[in-house]
Amino acid sequence: VRLYSGLMESRAPLFRQLFESESSTYTYLLADADSREAVLIDPVLETVDRDLQLISELGLTLKVACKHLFYYSYTGLLKMQIHSLPAGGAFLAAETVVSSVTAVNKCLTVRETPGHTDGCVTYVSEDERMAFTGDALLIRGCGRTDFQQGSPHRLYESVHKKIFTLPGHCFVYPAHDYKGQTVSTVDEEKKFNPRLTKTLPEFVNIMNNLNLPKPKKIGTVCVY
Amino acid sequence: VRLYSGLMESRAPLFRQLFESESSTYTYLLADADSREAVLIDPVLETVDRDLQLISELGLTLKVACKHLFYYSYTGLLKMQIHSLPAGGAFLAAETVVSSVTAVNKCLTVRETPGHTDGCVTYVSEDERMAFTGDALLIRGCGRTDFQQGSPHRLYESVHKKIFTLPGHCFVYPAHDYKGQTVSTVDEEKKFNPRLTKTLPEFVNIMNNLNLPKPKKIGTVCVY
Ligand SMILES: [Fe+2]
Ligand SMILES: [Fe+2]
Repeated sequence: VRLYSGLMESRAPLFRQLFESESSTYTYLLADADSREAVLIDPVLETVDRDLQLISELGLTLKVACKHLFYYSYTGLLKMQIHSLPAGGAFLAAETVVSSVTAVNKCLTVRETPGHTDGCVTYVSEDERMAFTGDALLIRGCGRTDFQQGSPHRLYESVHKKIFTLPGHCFVYPAHDYKGQTVSTVDEEKKFNPRLTKTLPEFVNIMNNLNLPKPKKIGTVCVY
Repeated sequence: VRLYSGLMESRAPLFRQLFESESSTYTYLLADADSREAVLIDPVLETVDRDLQLISELGLTLKVACKHLFYYSYTGLLKMQIHSLPAGGAFLAAETVVSSVTAVNKCLTVRETPGHTDGCVTYVSEDERMAFTGDALLIRGCGRTDFQQGSPHRLYESVHKKIFTLPGHCFVYPAHDYKGQTVSTVDEEKKFNPRLTKTLPEFVNIMNNLNLPKPKKIGTVCVY
């Protein structure tokens, strides 16, 4: 299985970062090199055909697709939204949240990181070398906190207690980027994030004065 | 120096992929974890400030910036165009091609891969785990061959003799991508590239019938 061995080491999980330019969203494909079971983080409708084709070409079985947030009053065990993809094969379909969570748990743990929304989570790889931070922590930025149960206080606490406590070399993979950046590290964001290096009162003040326009897709599943 | 240790292993070179959305161009930053010397592959004018800031934040010294191609009748040792960046610090300036090539050679070798243009090169990392293929090989595609000394025959030969001979797990990092894909592997392209899996006559026929519009920036330094 060397063909699909992924990042640097032959037994390392397969990893791919994919981009959707309309919403500036990153989708992440992670798979176990041996079992060929895959997890898709943050698929986007516009690019799901591309993702499914790649999964098929790489000989993977998609076990679960998950989002970094959800906007429904959904009370699953790990607050995870299972995205119902237009299935090319036999995946997802009627599988329950429980079996999906099991599949995710093999390689990812979930940390609740509310603040952008109530239900935002960060997925962390088993070895703590990768964190998929959703809208909680972006590269040199963070998600907005001015709608949908957003709270700058909670976001600040989430990032400092759940993400900045990861090893410094842990890679930070965000849900979005608007400047062509693909990855950062925990240490880099602790040093250079222009918002989250501030004190809590300063951070709250910044976030409450961004005066951002309402997002285009508010009310639908994905709010950027 | 663990902070900047880069991909997976603490002594591994630091590596960053960066994107410029106007021209769909990837810029790559590579640096030695110990010496902190960096190489920037394919910087783009529009995003060079972002790149220089990152280089500064990571505590790196930019030794050389190079392009995967050039359009001048330039006959340097390794056919490399030194991009004259608006220097924030003391880098590049009057350094000669020779000293730049030395810096590159520490971590990269250069393979001539003409076909898109006469002067296209592919940079290959020392351990043959990464190839920066420019416009020769794109993910599931390749550069056009219908202007600027382009030749489908030469491109086919370049890819098959200089890139497809690399180890199958070698990552393929292209100069451009238009579908949000960030990386591929040699094996994947050998199996799934819709053009380069064809025979030479079929490939030539495909490339001679693409009927692409003239690129916007022809005549300037970078032609996409
Ligand atoms: Fe989002
Ligand atoms: Fe190009």
